[in-house]
Amino acid sequence: MSQRIEVIAFDADDTLWINEPIFVHTQSRVKEVLSHHLEIEQLDDLLYQTEVKNLRLFGYGVKGFVLSMIETVIELTKEAVTGPEIQSIINLGKEMLEHPVEVLEGVRETLEVLQKDHTLMIITKGDLFDQESKVARSGLAPYFSHVEVVSEKNKSTYDRILSRYDFDRERFLMVGNSLKSDVLPLVELGVEAVHIPYHSTWTHEQVASHVEAEADFHRLEDIRQLPRFLSH
Amino acid sequence: MSQRIEVIAFDADDTLWINEPIFVHTQSRVKEVLSHHLEIEQLDDLLYQTEVKNLRLFGYGVKGFVLSMIETVIELTKEAVTGPEIQSIINLGKEMLEHPVEVLEGVRETLEVLQKDHTLMIITKGDLFDQESKVARSGLAPYFSHVEVVSEKNKSTYDRILSRYDFDRERFLMVGNSLKSDVLPLVELGVEAVHIPYHSTWTHEQVASHVEAEADFHRLEDIRQLPRFLSH
Repeated sequence: MSQRIEVIAFDADDTLWINEPIFVHTQSRVKEVLSHHLEIEQLDDLLYQTEVKNLRLFGYGVKGFVLSMIETVIELTKEAVTGPEIQSIINLGKEMLEHPVEVLEGVRETLEVLQKDHTLMIITKGDLFDQESKVARSGLAPYFSHVEVVSEKNKSTYDRILSRYDFDRERFLMVGNSLKSDVLPLVELGVEAVHIPYHSTWTHEQVASHVEAEADFHRLEDIRQLPRFLSH
Repeated sequence: MSQRIEVIAFDADDTLWINEPIFVHTQSRVKEVLSHHLEIEQLDDLLYQTEVKNLRLFGYGVKGFVLSMIETVIELTKEAVTGPEIQSIINLGKEMLEHPVEVLEGVRETLEVLQKDHTLMIITKGDLFDQESKVARSGLAPYFSHVEVVSEKNKSTYDRILSRYDFDRERFLMVGNSLKSDVLPLVELGVEAVHIPYHSTWTHEQVASHVEAEADFHRLEDIRQLPRFLSH
């Protein structure tokens, strides 16, 4: 395959660096800070409902997450939450935005190898500003020829990117941790994709097992297996 | 010039459709809703300071505006603001995100004319998700071959776009209402730009008059003058 694949596109969050655990951690911190409001125990379920309801308006990313968190806490505490408590939620959100970018193990050495024979790019979903900041802070920017931040990762998004760059679809490979966002839309387009699962996946990104079973894609345990996979 | 210019890029907010007045209007609504907190009178100045301070983390757009607004109100009211009052601020933010896109007068007819002989594109700053939604809701999408949402409009942003699309810099024209974002970076690159002022400009986008006086660009009163300007 190594002769064939020219362009490798990587998802970023939880493929190149840690992301979902930071959201999970912030949720725990909010529960700690507001633990005297006994209703806060039920945060997780209601927060998820609020986030999904707000996706249509807020899209993905930290700022929308914080706004949904504030709404959820106001509702959960039956409006008893105070100004300073809400400020502490905003501060936790700001910490997320400044959180050091923790590059996943094996990523840097793998990119180092792959860049020799391939054009590498990032295709990531979320807040434009936050994602660009993370690319810069990760120190990985030099490996990538292109960075595309998109609002949704579906078939038409990938189709648009492939066309815009005039990439040969037979020689393109997408790599990511989300079946729903990084793999299945490519399968639909007849384009190659590799799934590298991550231990923590947001409920909204999860896929029913029968959908997974029917799709045609590759799965690797670890990004360090990519160079060998490509040479087969 | 009409033979020369091939690609025309338009700013979107306050160039193609109304934007800044919606922020100004929301600010007034927040002052109304919270008028029983007497300190709210001083909202405007402190909000601006908070927004500028948060730009580094939030970037531009409605979600960052709402978060800065909540912070400002908590500070102004000395933490007396209540949960329901904060919810009403979030609701006003959601209204902004759903606000009908009001295309400015003369825009549609001008695009109709220009698209015959030119490639048209949008280069806009802000929230990716919100901007894409506005392009779709405006009904103007069919006129544009490309839409670029960027996190900052400076010399290197434009340089990157011009390179990525491999546009001829001699045959490219940028059109927008912000001297700082839509005109001066192009002037620096030696690329043509047209300034079409709008009556309302956010303080952060304003430019000192001596900077303006020294720069070499064109100014039109009205977007409807563009086709004639291009044919000269």
